[in-house]
Order: sequence, then structure tokens, then C-alpha cells
Amino acid sequence: MKFSSKIQNCGYSPIRKFYPYQVACKKRGVNIVPLNIGQPDIKTPDAYKDVLKNFDIDVLAYAPSPGIPELLEAVKKYYNKVGVPVETSDILVTTGGSEALTIALSCILDDGDELMIPEPFYPNYSTFTNLTGGKIHPIPTSPAENYKYAVREKLESCLTPHTRAMMLTNPGNPTGYVLTQEEMRIIADFVKEHDLFLIADEVYREFVYSDKPLSSFGTFDDIKDNVILIDSVSKRFSACGARIGCMISRNKELVAHAMKICQARLCCATIDQTVATALYGIDFSYFDDVKVEYMKRRDTLYNGLKAIPGVTLSNPEGAFYMMATLPVDDTDKFQQWLLEEFSYEGETVMYAPAAGFYGTPGAGKNEIRCAYVIDCELLEKACMLLGKAIEAYNNRQ
Amino acid sequence: MKFSSKIQNCGYSPIRKFYPYQVACKKRGVNIVPLNIGQPDIKTPDAYKDVLKNFDIDVLAYAPSPGIPELLEAVKKYYNKVGVPVETSDILVTTGGSEALTIALSCILDDGDELMIPEPFYPNYSTFTNLTGGKIHPIPTSPAENYKYAVREKLESCLTPHTRAMMLTNPGNPTGYVLTQEEMRIIADFVKEHDLFLIADEVYREFVYSDKPLSSFGTFDDIKDNVILIDSVSKRFSACGARIGCMISRNKELVAHAMKICQARLCCATIDQTVATALYGIDFSYFDDVKVEYMKRRDTLYNGLKAIPGVTLSNPEGAFYMMATLPVDDTDKFQQWLLEEFSYEGETVMYAPAAGFYGTPGAGKNEIRCAYVIDCELLEKACMLLGKAIEAYNNRQ
Repeated sequence: MKFSSKIQNCGYSPIRKFYPYQVACKKRGVNIVPLNIGQPDIKTPDAYKDVLKNFDIDVLAYAPSPGIPELLEAVKKYYNKVGVPVETSDILVTTGGSEALTIALSCILDDGDELMIPEPFYPNYSTFTNLTGGKIHPIPTSPAENYKYAVREKLESCLTPHTRAMMLTNPGNPTGYVLTQEEMRIIADFVKEHDLFLIADEVYREFVYSDKPLSSFGTFDDIKDNVILIDSVSKRFSACGARIGCMISRNKELVAHAMKICQARLCCATIDQTVATALYGIDFSYFDDVKVEYMKRRDTLYNGLKAIPGVTLSNPEGAFYMMATLPVDDTDKFQQWLLEEFSYEGETVMYAPAAGFYGTPGAGKNEIRCAYVIDCELLEKACMLLGKAIEAYNNRQ
Repeated sequence: MKFSSKIQNCGYSPIRKFYPYQVACKKRGVNIVPLNIGQPDIKTPDAYKDVLKNFDIDVLAYAPSPGIPELLEAVKKYYNKVGVPVETSDILVTTGGSEALTIALSCILDDGDELMIPEPFYPNYSTFTNLTGGKIHPIPTSPAENYKYAVREKLESCLTPHTRAMMLTNPGNPTGYVLTQEEMRIIADFVKEHDLFLIADEVYREFVYSDKPLSSFGTFDDIKDNVILIDSVSKRFSACGARIGCMISRNKELVAHAMKICQARLCCATIDQTVATALYGIDFSYFDDVKVEYMKRRDTLYNGLKAIPGVTLSNPEGAFYMMATLPVDDTDKFQQWLLEEFSYEGETVMYAPAAGFYGTPGAGKNEIRCAYVIDCELLEKACMLLGKAIEAYNNRQ
């Protein structure tokens, strides 16, 4: 049987590809300290359980295609509170940020069209792009420059006659990089001048640890027709399993096109939309406590990694990820070795090798992505294990 | 801003396009009896509320990409019970049957590839197909032959060098047509001989009112590599708002490709998967009562429509839809007139004009689809209104 070229261009998740080695590692009795996963351990706000307890509808019916009115209203209120002037008609509720991305890209990209994305980037962007027939044109960055990409000349040099849009995650996954207001302006001018869509994945919006103001591309009025915001309850409210997100745009034509897809797939889950409505409505003070916890973890991980001889990294300002460059030949091979051969007091460590986050072949071979969604004690242990492992790996015969 | 050719080829739902007229109709104080919607009014089994009451997980985390193990096991058990020998590794849980269709088509169709579908068909198939860049090649049928399509010569005549797959709904939406065992064999031989995928959307499996045995293309061992089953809890358990479905195939290579998409979109909603697990586990006797109710409604609607002078139709054997040919010039125009100008004792009626269910331009102009998901009294009233309206419409100046 023949398969589409599109699916053949897609790969498996680079984060999940070590799963068989992980199973084998557990079999040999070695415990794994995980720096590789993006699932926060923060408690979902209690509001979600209240919704379930009180959910009392006899027929679990279809919801409206763009979303239930209560959720659209709650999202609008949340956005207005963070300074983004959207109407409910600018919002389409989606099955996670993932579906929002899929819908946005389907509306924009034809076969051979190009999407500019600063690398390293969230690997699932590749699958979403490949499925449209379009392709990613990576904007190169370097760890030495702390993955800075919002430089006018850099952006211009990636432009081709096939460029249709630029996509970014801010705060960044996997870099934790947070754009300055000046950098956002550079990007805004660039997309405006070249008539490109700007898909801004801002699902980590609240997780900024510097004194930079909470910011959104949705506040730039002069590019309101270019901007597509991707939103999700997953990280913000530690509700990854609810699979509720949004695609938001003040470009009416785009929303009208996207609505065709929303109508075809009928609706998002009714129960989860009700849960999400409650989550968007919680008091913002919730984020203060969560932020304090993440900052503590970030500092623990940063200090722990920095103390390992030969490891270089910058302290990221947002999200809950951190890139680091290791003094090893290949972080993919090193990860396999960690799972197959290494252990210290019955334990080893996992990270996400960074090659899978790059679009440029061969890039990121010495880099890793770590997520700090586990507690400080575990993070310290992970760094200790990584230090011992690097030494042992480089002293092998 | 430029949009993709794919999204420009998509249309809005023909079922929902009368929404503005509907609003205007309500404004002029006229009540609408709905024969146009596919949302069953049957109570969702109580098992679903029990799940919500007892759901007590602190972190609403991601589920595994192929589905939670409990649900995979429940689906497997259900399928084994209906005689389809599937393993849990053949099953991918999806966000409704809609996502299962999207994933299957993305794995198969490239730009310009063709998908054979008997017309009239479920209109959203068009959007799912257009988004892959592929196109539908309709298999023509006629109301006079009761929409019969499983005829070897008919199938052969639709084959082109671009044909990659055949897709069908059985029991049928919008026709209610149920394939005989002989017809299923004809289709099986056809896809086998031409090495085509067969996407069998069997979400109405339990709703068969004749003495035909409950059947599935999953039982045909010799085409197990060709068959992709589409499943959903929406209609079977009257749980449309749960948005849980499955893509099932014994073609390991297909499932491996589909898994890339499942990994990229992370998972389906955790709460709804738990709900669906309970639903797949309910006693099959549930369907007996539901079937009795639907049969009563089918007979009521059939007899009511048949009694209208000039209306022709066949009594469908499955699902909860019925096609009818009306003695009017254009059922699209007639529907608009029904909403804008007609009323009898303060009421009018809505159906789904059938042109939107056809791939062949101009086909189905005199046909309508009715859904019998409302109670018998309302169905009788709908038929009475339709009869009066046809007379008034054809006697206009």
C-alpha cells in the first residue's frame, strides 16, 4: 500500500524516541531522573474538580463549532485583562494549542510554501508543517548568542519567494528565550513589510521570571491582520489533559477560513470546555505562587548545570525549559549510553537531545533541552548524575 | 494576505449555512421544527456521570498519544464482541471520528490523489479531503435505485490512475443505506484487486433495523491491510460532546505512520477518554431500547413523508437519516422560502437540502435529508408542515 509523501516526511517525536531504551533501562533496575518531559507537576486549580462534580447534563451533546459562549467570553476577558483587545468573534476554541496550529497552518500553507521558524524549535511544528505540504525554513541561532533571532538582517536573509509566514514561541520552547519589546517591534515591522502571517505561540505567557512586562503580539495594532495567537490551558493552568486551546486573530478573513475547518470537525469536547471556562476565570494571583516555584527550580537547574565542568548555558528568562551545551561528541549517543550503560547508585538521567529541535541537519549535536517541571531536590540529583556521567563517558576506553 | 488553495477549496457546512435565515425566522416569531440536525436526543448512559463524579486526579496530565490503556482495552473488547479480531496496538484513540478521518486521509492522500466516495455523502468528508490536497471522485447513485453503489461495474468506472482509496459510511449517512454481505464482498474484492485503502466509517453500526446481521469490514481477513475502520462514541452512546473516536487498522505500517500525527498532537482529552472507557463497557442491551425508539421514529417519518403527494423515498434500513425527493424546483430555494415566507399556525420546518451532500455539481437538487432524532409527535408535525408548505410553494404566483 502506498502512503502520502507528506506522512513519509514526518518523523516520530524526538522526545519520545528513547522510549524503548527507557523500558530496557528500567528492566536492568536503574531509576531514571527525568529532565526530558514537558508535563508540569503543578496541581491543576481546584476549580476543575468543582466543574466535574457539578456537571449535570443528560445528553452530552455537540458544542457550537467555534466554542461554547461561556468559554469564548472567559478567553476574551482574560485577553482584555492582559491588554489584548479581542472580541469573542476573533476566538476559535481548539483541541489544545496543537489543533490551533494545525488549523492556522492549513489556512496558510500550500505545497512548497515556506514557514520561517527560529531554531531550535518545538519539534511537533515540523509534523504540523509537513502535513500541509509546506516546509520549515529555519532561522539559525547560536548558543553563544543565547539563541537570539530577532535581528532584522537575520530575518531578511531567510526570506524567499515562497515565504508565507513566520512562527515563534514566546517565551521560547526549548530555549526559554523571552523577546524584548524592541525585538518584538523588529519582528512586527518585518512581517508587516513582507505581508507575512505571524503565528505567535504564546502558551507560556505567564512564565516570565525577569522584570520584562508580560507581553503579546496581540497588542501590536498595526499588524493585527498578520498576527495569529496560539493559546492553551495546558501549561498556564497545568491542565495538559484538558486539550483546550484557542486560535485567536483579528484578521476576519482568516477566522472565516478557519471556521470551515472548525465546522467540519464539529466541536471541541463539551466537558473540557466547561473546565477551561472555570480555569480562565481563576484569580491571577495563582500565577504568582507558580512563578515563585518555577524560578526556584530554574535557578537550581541553572546553577547545577553551570557547575559541571565543560557545560555552557545561559540563564533563560521564561517558560520552563533550558538549553545547555555539553562537552560530549553527540548528545543523542550520550543519551543512549546513559540509558544502556550508565548508573550511579542505581540511577541515571534523561534529557531531550537537541538535534531533534533543529531544522538544519547536523545542528545542535552537542546541545540538550532540560525541563524544570520536577522539584528542586530531583533537579539537583539530575545535575549530579549528569556531571558524573559526562566524566565517565569521556573517560571510556 | 494570501490563503492556501486548500482552504479556499473548502466550503462551509451545508447543514449550518441556513443559520442566518433561522435567526431571522425566529425573529418573525415562527417556530422551527427541525429535521435537519444530527444530534440525537437520546440520554447518554448514566455511566458517564458516575465517571465525572469520581474523577479525582490532582494534575490533569497528558494521556499517552495512542490513548489511555483502559480505553484501548475497552475498545478491543467491544470489537472482539462484534466479531472483529483487533489488538490494542491496532487502535488509535482520536478526537471524535472526525480526527480519525483526518489522520487516515493525511496518511494516504497527496495533492491530486483521488478518493472514491458514493454520493450523496457526509459533507464534512469534502473538507477533510480538500485539506490534504486530494479530491473526492464521487460514485454516482440514484434515488430510483435506492442509492445502491456496491456494483462492480459502477466501482470500476470511477477508477483512475490517481485513485488511492475508497471511503464509505455503513450504515449510510445521509441515505440510511445498509450494505448486504454480498455487497460488502464486492467492495472487498474491488479494493483488494486494485490495492486501495478502504476507509469504512461504521459509527452507526448498531443502528440497523432490518434483520441484516450487524457487520463490519473489519471481519474480512483477506483485506485486513486495506481496511481502516472509523469509530466514535458520538452516535452509539449519544455522547457527541465527548469527542472520542478511534482509527482502527490491522495494517501495521499505516498505524505506525498515523502514530506520528498522534504523537505530534500529544493526546486526546483525559477526562473524555475515561468517560468513553465506561461507555464502551456498558451492557449491549442498551442498544435494544434505543433501536426500538429509532425504528418507531423511522416508521413515523417514512409514513409521514410518503403520504405527501409527489414525495418519493425508500425506507432506509439503518442510521437515523432518510433521503426524500420533493416535488419542488430546488430544495435549497424551498428551504429559504420555508424560513423567510412560510408558516402554518406559527410554525415551519427545516431539513438539510441534499445538493451539499453530492460531489457532482447540480446533483440532488430535488432531494432532502431528514434526521429522525426528535420524537414521533414532532416528526408527524414536521411532515404535516412539509405537506402544506409544498402545496403553498407550488401554488405561489
